[in-house]
Amino acid sequence: MILPLTPVRFKRHAARIFGAKKGIVCGHSRFTYREFTERADRLSDALVRLGLKAGDRVAYLSFNCHRLLEAYFGVPQISAILLPLNIRLSAEELAYILGDSEPRLLFFDPELIPLVESLRQRASSVEHFIALRWHTDPARPPWAYPQTYDEQLAAAGPREVDYRAIDENSVAELFYTSGTTAHPKGVMLTHRNLYLHALYAALALRCADDEVALYSVPLFHVNSWGIPHMVTLTGGRHVLMKKFDPAVALELVQRERVTRLQMVPTMVIALINHPDFHRYDRASVKAAMMGGAPTNTALIRQVEQKIPGCVAIGGLRLNGDVARDYPRRHQGTSGRRTAGDPIAAEGYGRLRFRRVRGAGCGCPRPRREARRPADRGGAGARRRGHERVLAPARRDSASDPVRLVLHRGFGDDRPTGYILIVDRLKDMVLSGGEKIATAEIERVLYEHPSVLECAVIAVPDDTWGEVPKALVVLRPGHTSREPELLDHCRRYLAGFKVPKSVEFVESLPKGGTGKILKKVLREKYWAGKERRVQ
Amino acid sequence: MILPLTPVRFKRHAARIFGAKKGIVCGHSRFTYREFTERADRLSDALVRLGLKAGDRVAYLSFNCHRLLEAYFGVPQISAILLPLNIRLSAEELAYILGDSEPRLLFFDPELIPLVESLRQRASSVEHFIALRWHTDPARPPWAYPQTYDEQLAAAGPREVDYRAIDENSVAELFYTSGTTAHPKGVMLTHRNLYLHALYAALALRCADDEVALYSVPLFHVNSWGIPHMVTLTGGRHVLMKKFDPAVALELVQRERVTRLQMVPTMVIALINHPDFHRYDRASVKAAMMGGAPTNTALIRQVEQKIPGCVAIGGLRLNGDVARDYPRRHQGTSGRRTAGDPIAAEGYGRLRFRRVRGAGCGCPRPRREARRPADRGGAGARRRGHERVLAPARRDSASDPVRLVLHRGFGDDRPTGYILIVDRLKDMVLSGGEKIATAEIERVLYEHPSVLECAVIAVPDDTWGEVPKALVVLRPGHTSREPELLDHCRRYLAGFKVPKSVEFVESLPKGGTGKILKKVLREKYWAGKERRVQ
Repeated sequence: MILPLTPVRFKRHAARIFGAKKGIVCGHSRFTYREFTERADRLSDALVRLGLKAGDRVAYLSFNCHRLLEAYFGVPQISAILLPLNIRLSAEELAYILGDSEPRLLFFDPELIPLVESLRQRASSVEHFIALRWHTDPARPPWAYPQTYDEQLAAAGPREVDYRAIDENSVAELFYTSGTTAHPKGVMLTHRNLYLHALYAALALRCADDEVALYSVPLFHVNSWGIPHMVTLTGGRHVLMKKFDPAVALELVQRERVTRLQMVPTMVIALINHPDFHRYDRASVKAAMMGGAPTNTALIRQVEQKIPGCVAIGGLRLNGDVARDYPRRHQGTSGRRTAGDPIAAEGYGRLRFRRVRGAGCGCPRPRREARRPADRGGAGARRRGHERVLAPARRDSASDPVRLVLHRGFGDDRPTGYILIVDRLKDMVLSGGEKIATAEIERVLYEHPSVLECAVIAVPDDTWGEVPKALVVLRPGHTSREPELLDHCRRYLAGFKVPKSVEFVESLPKGGTGKILKKVLREKYWAGKERRVQ
Repeated sequence: MILPLTPVRFKRHAARIFGAKKGIVCGHSRFTYREFTERADRLSDALVRLGLKAGDRVAYLSFNCHRLLEAYFGVPQISAILLPLNIRLSAEELAYILGDSEPRLLFFDPELIPLVESLRQRASSVEHFIALRWHTDPARPPWAYPQTYDEQLAAAGPREVDYRAIDENSVAELFYTSGTTAHPKGVMLTHRNLYLHALYAALALRCADDEVALYSVPLFHVNSWGIPHMVTLTGGRHVLMKKFDPAVALELVQRERVTRLQMVPTMVIALINHPDFHRYDRASVKAAMMGGAPTNTALIRQVEQKIPGCVAIGGLRLNGDVARDYPRRHQGTSGRRTAGDPIAAEGYGRLRFRRVRGAGCGCPRPRREARRPADRGGAGARRRGHERVLAPARRDSASDPVRLVLHRGFGDDRPTGYILIVDRLKDMVLSGGEKIATAEIERVLYEHPSVLECAVIAVPDDTWGEVPKALVVLRPGHTSREPELLDHCRRYLAGFKVPKSVEFVESLPKGGTGKILKKVLREKYWAGKERRVQ
């Protein structure tokens, strides 16, 4: 008999090996793995009682919450499909996703009642809208299912389904892309995907039962994706925070002895610059993984100065071999290919890659070297194909989870498997036939002491087609002017990469996870014009 | 597309990520992962040129050698089946195995020519007998294939087969049980078995690319099984020693900075008692895993005293979560259930299990507690079922690799997943309706300072059916007599467990891997009598 690969086994394993451990922390609630498992099993039973069947989608509109974490095991256990929705999307976007995915159930947090209210009429597939819990205000809406999630769990029995009946190649989770560049696309992840990814990630991160993971990024976001399985598999502790707040994060780090931070760079900036930062004990933190947007080495240095004993790792995705002895020169990369990574055989793209030379990556390099074609995607670079960061095709089950693209080189001739992502292709500037990575310019700007945040975007130019423009938020008390920042850029960048202008702004528009929305920034400059997009 | 789970991917991964690393050390030869991979790929090509097809068995009669390690990837890459044979078996036993498995090829070490000569006529399925290398004496036998392994590799090209064509549920390796208690049984391991086991083992052992594994146990033995995949997957270093010799092992530990020892207890005893032991640097050793036979806590203590910084772990199998911070009280167990371990749902037996109480395991306990029924397999113990240590049924592909049995308890009420194996059922003494674990008695004997090695066996007794008898090898210079050792046993064991006699011997008969052959010891006492075997 072949035992199916399914994350349901992780729950079972944790309940047996770590059953008495208080593995789940959510606000002031604490659950042992045995209690957590029982709740997930009760959820399975409640879903069956509601008529849910294999393949049915179960949607969640929820902040980070132990109830959502329970769904990661309780929903796939009955071969239904978990669909965590991005609560920061508009009612229109959510209605599109619900129309596309056709869930039969929608669980929602009562704080999101106005949002549910506004999309309810358009969610024709949803038979029941079920509150995860009630709070007194607003009152229970008449369209909601009479019982809450918690009430249903209390009425249900723990149904531990025999995982051996699960088809490992059936879909277990459905996530939608953010839709910043197009309609959201459903990314389907099978039981086998999730199982293998958890093993690869736990192995690469040397995750064990002493791990304490803080969920600062929403669970519905790709940067939290896979963490519930990895932490459960290894018997670590899940520390959920409802939504990111630097003070709350610091409090949780101290109270729960958090070992691993997973944040987008803007969260990390908010955390380490918080006025009360130094009042909190952060000695337990061993790794700070920054993903979701390109990081810069200046930020990496700051994090390591402010959290001694912590290795900070940046990259576009939270991926790779981020062991505690992570080679420092690789810290600015997006990580390393993991064991199950089949990347090199296939073509990947959408993101551009380059060979990295010398001692660092993401660090400013002398101008002469920067001019060499290899730095912008030479023979060794791979540009082909379509995005495979997550499984690309809707309704087309992905194979093993795939992570980014092989980066070879790195200061010597040996292939190291470390990956550096230069930029999103859509964010690149196409200037006079040259492709300019905006993230590279941003990394240079971040090296300047006056820059708190910045974004470089393509703006239209009659001569070059496009040119790079920098939008900069200065640190409080700093007063740099455009010429100073442009001089700084000229020191470290080839001439054609230097922004044509710098604009100082109070803040930068951000998405639900703190990612800077370059599309929004570009709109002002591209009104009425069509941008060439590769 | 679903990418098949096959160990061939580990080779590919290592070649790409760790290609320039001298990952394979064999005598004075050193190979980078790239060179090693090329050799494995050339082996694949040579096998295809010889007409080998998917499903064909390829047998090896070899000492530990880089050529045998190459086979772990080169053979399954073309979907053929690797069959490493135990070179310590008799020609009769090997002829039985060859008749049962029907390999088309047999690779052999020239030192084993007499053995091959004696079984050649009975190996009717073997089309070619191919020497792994030549040495001058004896001369090339006329029946051997004209080219050696090395010559064929030189003539072949590197054939990297597309692993995506491999059926992950096809058999990749075939191992035979030792046949100490019955006819050898073929244990079939699929590509998927091997792939998943490597991930589980690497995760449990926190194996990474800084690992240096010394192969002191022959590769054909279960205690080396899975290590080639785990070390390749993580990019560690394989250090092969032709056959175990304590001086050579010490030399290799020093020269290669070995981090992990995997040995049967008798090897460890020979190592730490070697007269030149203290002349070698052994500071690199972080873990000493003892398997293949029950270990005792006295030995664990000795190893840790003699190799400071090393955690010694004993148990019947090299299994489980043997991280560097392995809880000390668990060191005498056989390890911990790993992530993919589906044990608890199924029945296991052949080996008996007991609940362990108090602070230690395998340590002598006060007599009163020892009398409690729970200590001999009470309500919490599991005795059911058939052996599932390895996949049991021949010609019946195993599911995920299965490891031993859940042991619950351990001084508190939490299930910990640690496993203590008391004894092989066949080695137990059935005395007046009581089952006595000989390993338990041996553990007590090993606590006595005069005991170098010992074995307790069942001997016939007119009153009790069977009684335990101890065979003891004294340490040089020690002069204990029977009454002293029996007194020692009475201090720590219930009366019915105390051996009825002690016999002092010069040495104990051992199998190919140093395991004491109790079957041989028993023969003398059971001649003409039939032993009740459960």
